[in-house]
Amino acid sequence: MPKISNKGISMPESPIRKLVPYAEAAHKKGKNVYYLNIGQPDIKTPTVALNAIKNTNIDILAYSRSEGSESYRIKIADYYKRNSINITHNDIIVTTGGSEALLFAFGSIMDKDDEIIIPEPFYANYNGFSKSSGVNVVPVISKIEDNFALPAIEAFEKLITPKTKAILICNPGNPTGYLYSKEEIKQLAAMVKKHDLFLIADEVYREFVYDGIEHYSILQEPGLEDHAIVIDSVSKRYSMCGARVGYLVSKNEEFIKTALKFAQARLSPPTLAQIASEAALDTPQSYFDNVKEEYVKRRNILIEELEKIEGVKVAKPNGAFYCIAELPVKNSDDFAKWLLESFEFNNNTVMVAPAAGFYSTPGVGLNQIRIAYVLNEESLKTCVKILKEALKVYKD
Amino acid sequence: MPKISNKGISMPESPIRKLVPYAEAAHKKGKNVYYLNIGQPDIKTPTVALNAIKNTNIDILAYSRSEGSESYRIKIADYYKRNSINITHNDIIVTTGGSEALLFAFGSIMDKDDEIIIPEPFYANYNGFSKSSGVNVVPVISKIEDNFALPAIEAFEKLITPKTKAILICNPGNPTGYLYSKEEIKQLAAMVKKHDLFLIADEVYREFVYDGIEHYSILQEPGLEDHAIVIDSVSKRYSMCGARVGYLVSKNEEFIKTALKFAQARLSPPTLAQIASEAALDTPQSYFDNVKEEYVKRRNILIEELEKIEGVKVAKPNGAFYCIAELPVKNSDDFAKWLLESFEFNNNTVMVAPAAGFYSTPGVGLNQIRIAYVLNEESLKTCVKILKEALKVYKD
Repeated sequence: MPKISNKGISMPESPIRKLVPYAEAAHKKGKNVYYLNIGQPDIKTPTVALNAIKNTNIDILAYSRSEGSESYRIKIADYYKRNSINITHNDIIVTTGGSEALLFAFGSIMDKDDEIIIPEPFYANYNGFSKSSGVNVVPVISKIEDNFALPAIEAFEKLITPKTKAILICNPGNPTGYLYSKEEIKQLAAMVKKHDLFLIADEVYREFVYDGIEHYSILQEPGLEDHAIVIDSVSKRYSMCGARVGYLVSKNEEFIKTALKFAQARLSPPTLAQIASEAALDTPQSYFDNVKEEYVKRRNILIEELEKIEGVKVAKPNGAFYCIAELPVKNSDDFAKWLLESFEFNNNTVMVAPAAGFYSTPGVGLNQIRIAYVLNEESLKTCVKILKEALKVYKD
Repeated sequence: MPKISNKGISMPESPIRKLVPYAEAAHKKGKNVYYLNIGQPDIKTPTVALNAIKNTNIDILAYSRSEGSESYRIKIADYYKRNSINITHNDIIVTTGGSEALLFAFGSIMDKDDEIIIPEPFYANYNGFSKSSGVNVVPVISKIEDNFALPAIEAFEKLITPKTKAILICNPGNPTGYLYSKEEIKQLAAMVKKHDLFLIADEVYREFVYDGIEHYSILQEPGLEDHAIVIDSVSKRYSMCGARVGYLVSKNEEFIKTALKFAQARLSPPTLAQIASEAALDTPQSYFDNVKEEYVKRRNILIEELEKIEGVKVAKPNGAFYCIAELPVKNSDDFAKWLLESFEFNNNTVMVAPAAGFYSTPGVGLNQIRIAYVLNEESLKTCVKILKEALKVYKD
């Protein structure tokens, strides 16, 4: 039999997927499982986006331009301008989700064995994109005690080698919910300029910021034009995860020109989803206000209830819809399996994401879990109750 | 300024795109340009597929499974069974176009600097996917004199090294229109088994076969289960290029398991397009019969008319909707630019694809062009007339 590649063998399995068979088995046994593990929101997609699809009158579902349709990119540029980010449609490449934007960015700036420094815990699929691009993730640890704030710049600088090509942040963060301050962005900007690196910011949760704090994009930072690459996506913003539409944004012309070659090789981003995504830009502000209000309520309930459990420590997120909680267990992977396999409370249990999968350093985060607050308040209360009861009886 | 990667620098620009600025300039001058250069058919998308989108009643555009929705994969497996290919939905991963299927296949079976042998001329984007995967294309020349039939197996075997991991064919071929015979597939099968290689067949034009010849898939070849990887796509079959839905098909479980890890990292193929693509599987046979009849008419007219021009040699295609023509010019790239920049016939001109971009060996195919017969008969006649008049006055 012909051999699978080393790259293929070393591609990580999704840390969340590993638990799916356990959840399916729990279902089969008649247990009700609450899913706190995934980032698929229960929020409705804006009607204006869905209607655009229903009312489409195309008769040939043709390729769009490789960089995305011009009308859509012009509207995206307007969106950024409304958000104090001064770019034009020429600085944008529409991609098949934020995932493809990351792949194009990695391919355009890194060769095999190059290094990218990422504060951990980080979005687990950054590992997959790094492996498939043949580059290495160098983690710098951020701590629950600091609410997952930016690690000291010295900690980054210690890790910079001739192979380092970029720093990657997720702002606000998945899985931490941490929102970087303007000051932290300025520190990062100074560092990447000093060492001539790219700064990639995954800003897909940009609209999900709470408590009156404003999101400060790396695209707003003066003098960072040649270094800044933003990854964006419609997935969470409009609850359109299945659209698979994202974008790469940069004022660095050479970078955009290079990324476009990757885009041309795969011909075009999805046409139908671009129609929906373009229409989604007309979503009324009231939609976002309601969504934000809903998430703040959920977050407050979740954190408040989790903090009542003895031995549980929670980082308070200012953005996105995730939080990391430290549990009084040795290994949250075992605990998560046990919740699905062996525990029930009134026939209910929960599925959580063990946080070790979000760390690249072995042995770190073993007692942490990520909770996505993508369920309604009532369900979240029940979930925390289940966790509380489970922790009473769980033995490592 | 931080540096672009060598990978990014070496990514090829699309050979077709290079001419786009010339076509745009011709438009601006008021010339009418007939596009023979691209594979975007003018055929209507089946109503059943477009209606599925218009009638969708989803309220959250959610992720699908990474391997594609189960209902869709089950229906795809039925489609293959109807086509004498015995596979199940577990042998299928739905991808974002055939492009992503190729990327997943390359990533799953090849590491940096590994080699893949491809008969040339070949689909130009195979170069891009190879570059972005860090692997090398080793071309084996097929000739217009032989109608672009399979090169002798000895020609392949001379090129096999310890780094060779796979043979890639496109059947029927883009850009040649050549349909491999059952005998040729059997020869390839024996060779890949002997040398323990993968055989990847891009069969996206499978339904476009003419003259009563039947397509023989590598998935029909007994004993090839561990070696055969099929790339498929809805793009051309249902004139749904903009859907960005394709699939990987293989009975090799280890391969599918590995490719699934790449699929999981990017979360999901497009959900809306999967709804349309699933419905497209109910397209009535009459649709395909009409399309086929139309393409046969177009091909016949095109070949007949081209052969009337002195000094023009054409390979007669039995499949797809492309043909390669050899022209009495030194450099078809210069000729193609000249057609757009300096020529007109009754204010019309044509855009063709210079064939050198479909060869990997430098200096080969310089006097050839690829013509996509994606325009109606009347337009094709006009196009050939334009070419004929142009060749009368063109000076190298």
